[in-house]
Amino acid sequence: MTTGSIPASRYADRLQRAQEALPAQDASAMLVGVGAELLWLTGYDAMPLERLTMLVFPAQRRATLVVPRLELASAQASPAVTGELVDVATWEETEDPFARVAQLLGESRSRPEIQMGALGGAWGRLGGLLVSDRLWATFLLRLQSALPDAAFGLASSVLSPLRATKDAEEVQLLRRAAHAADRTITAIAGGRLVGRSEADVAREIRERLVTEGHEEAAFWIVASGPNSASPHHHAGDRVICAGEPVVLDIGGRIEGYGSDITRTLWVTGDDAEAGRPDPEYRRLYDVLQRSQAAATAAVRPDVACEEIDAVARRIITDDGFGSNFIHRTGHGIGLEGHEDPYLVAGNEERLRPGHAFSVEPGIYLDGRFGARIEDIVVCGPDGPDILNQADRDLLVVRGT
Amino acid sequence: MTTGSIPASRYADRLQRAQEALPAQDASAMLVGVGAELLWLTGYDAMPLERLTMLVFPAQRRATLVVPRLELASAQASPAVTGELVDVATWEETEDPFARVAQLLGESRSRPEIQMGALGGAWGRLGGLLVSDRLWATFLLRLQSALPDAAFGLASSVLSPLRATKDAEEVQLLRRAAHAADRTITAIAGGRLVGRSEADVAREIRERLVTEGHEEAAFWIVASGPNSASPHHHAGDRVICAGEPVVLDIGGRIEGYGSDITRTLWVTGDDAEAGRPDPEYRRLYDVLQRSQAAATAAVRPDVACEEIDAVARRIITDDGFGSNFIHRTGHGIGLEGHEDPYLVAGNEERLRPGHAFSVEPGIYLDGRFGARIEDIVVCGPDGPDILNQADRDLLVVRGT
Repeated sequence: MTTGSIPASRYADRLQRAQEALPAQDASAMLVGVGAELLWLTGYDAMPLERLTMLVFPAQRRATLVVPRLELASAQASPAVTGELVDVATWEETEDPFARVAQLLGESRSRPEIQMGALGGAWGRLGGLLVSDRLWATFLLRLQSALPDAAFGLASSVLSPLRATKDAEEVQLLRRAAHAADRTITAIAGGRLVGRSEADVAREIRERLVTEGHEEAAFWIVASGPNSASPHHHAGDRVICAGEPVVLDIGGRIEGYGSDITRTLWVTGDDAEAGRPDPEYRRLYDVLQRSQAAATAAVRPDVACEEIDAVARRIITDDGFGSNFIHRTGHGIGLEGHEDPYLVAGNEERLRPGHAFSVEPGIYLDGRFGARIEDIVVCGPDGPDILNQADRDLLVVRGT
Repeated sequence: MTTGSIPASRYADRLQRAQEALPAQDASAMLVGVGAELLWLTGYDAMPLERLTMLVFPAQRRATLVVPRLELASAQASPAVTGELVDVATWEETEDPFARVAQLLGESRSRPEIQMGALGGAWGRLGGLLVSDRLWATFLLRLQSALPDAAFGLASSVLSPLRATKDAEEVQLLRRAAHAADRTITAIAGGRLVGRSEADVAREIRERLVTEGHEEAAFWIVASGPNSASPHHHAGDRVICAGEPVVLDIGGRIEGYGSDITRTLWVTGDDAEAGRPDPEYRRLYDVLQRSQAAATAAVRPDVACEEIDAVARRIITDDGFGSNFIHRTGHGIGLEGHEDPYLVAGNEERLRPGHAFSVEPGIYLDGRFGARIEDIVVCGPDGPDILNQADRDLLVVRGT
């Protein structure tokens, strides 16, 4: 992964805002393992390994990046370390890194301002420790064992609201990725499909996602005919035929930021009349397209996430497909493919400028066919900023 | 990912052996999330999602695969479900999947043979629950909250010994992957290197890993000149020059099973005399090669893992490079790139036939250069079965 679009100074700001938010969660420290949260805080794109890498980040003290010694050079190249924003501590292959983490927390615990502060109460002696959401159980259970007095919570309680609001550079990366995904969809829709297996088309998508501008391909759903009724179908051996739909749900990453677009094609074959879309499918798609457009148009600051879902669902339900829309309307996107905010019933969180998320209703008729339309949308100051620009109509193509 | 090399009947055997091993760990159930452990047990290559997918596997009852409703079709296509070895339960977008898991455990808990069994003791009312090693903290903390009486441990205590011993089909997949990696190394060593950036060579490696037979590329370390002193260097913008070493550590996957090979090149440029290897580097490489060969030759059943590490380390230490060999000698490999058994000081576990692991000593002189040689080796009944066949000598190439 390359980095560089995010100014180095941004990491100082992110670390500071994260630290300032800890006391409100009654937390004495954050323990951030490998993944999007570490990348967002420090710019360190660490390898996911069974060896512990962890940012130990006390509420009132400088953070320390604990790394296996053989990762030291990589860690030292990260923006937060070159910018001297965090310290680095290494551990050897035969050392216990959890004892090292406990020791670093102990050092901060012994400082009077921590012992006397608001953190001692219900959390016990050590206070609350917030761990990154995707920290592996093998690490969390060992931390719990090394720190039996601590109450563990999720670092996302602090980091997720911060990460969900994208800055200008992040939006620009999401936009670049979206346009690369748009071009990929257009290229695939314009090529041969009939007679090819889903897996073969998926292989082409993986290549094109990169040639169109992503640094790496991330996912490549190709769901043809009855498989289009399965939202997360794995591209398989099924051969695409004339006279059926194909749902493409694809994405890649640029500097860690993702694209995620879904478009639905109808492949006619050479006899465009004989292979034309089924009228029932046309109707289904029309309902879906109205739903997706209305949900997108409803995006603006202070609208609740669940309301966007409700807008999309109301239209689909009113037309009799309510029970066929079996997933939420959307998910946030950034350094993770799915992150806050989620557009789902029950999520009363309100949209803010800079929130970036998918709007992707779908309708699925089991064993027959399905369709989905998905764009990445950023909440702008007055309404939606729709990053994807590829045509949203049912893409009727010959595919030969 | 394609599957199919592992016979469907194998999953019944694996599920049975895993279940039979639970009582010895005082465990009432296993909770297996998305990842290698689920794939090994059921053949289900589930997407890693924020939505919970979990195999709830009681010690004395059939397992249930809990999946988000929109993943149902994918889950149903997995060998363990088509073979009717496990039940499937779905949850809707607005339901609480953790309550569903607790309910499934409660059902098993209410059975008298569980309540009266040996599982009640120290583990409390629910008994021990073993979670998969890479289960995310966001899931584990919610499970701990939903099941406050349970003691949580790691499913690897049961699964790791079973998974570490590869069956014939698994060894064959590892061998196919190793040979594809061998061909990739040979092709890269035979091509142009001088004047290209590490990142550019890495891009070629990613493509070649696939064209040579992997289903996907997994990692691609290209460490040139002084970067070769960093074992896990990220391929970057540095341009490869004549008269320096390049460490390639690369791998891909076939049906989930990994390759992992390291070879060290010395790039001379067109003037092979002027660009020839530094004599000190030659000496370092000679020591390294003897170490790697001796460690490999020491592989046979009943030898302790730490002994293989000691054999490799002794030779390097005797020649004065002990403090420059900063990592363990090897790691197991299978559906995870790094898994048991680990060849590291302190690991008294004894090798068994079918154990598959890397043998990869390295010597690193900070800021100057480094080298590493790595093969994947299977412990055979009488000695090592070395899967990689690419030349292990220092590969002196023009690179132009």
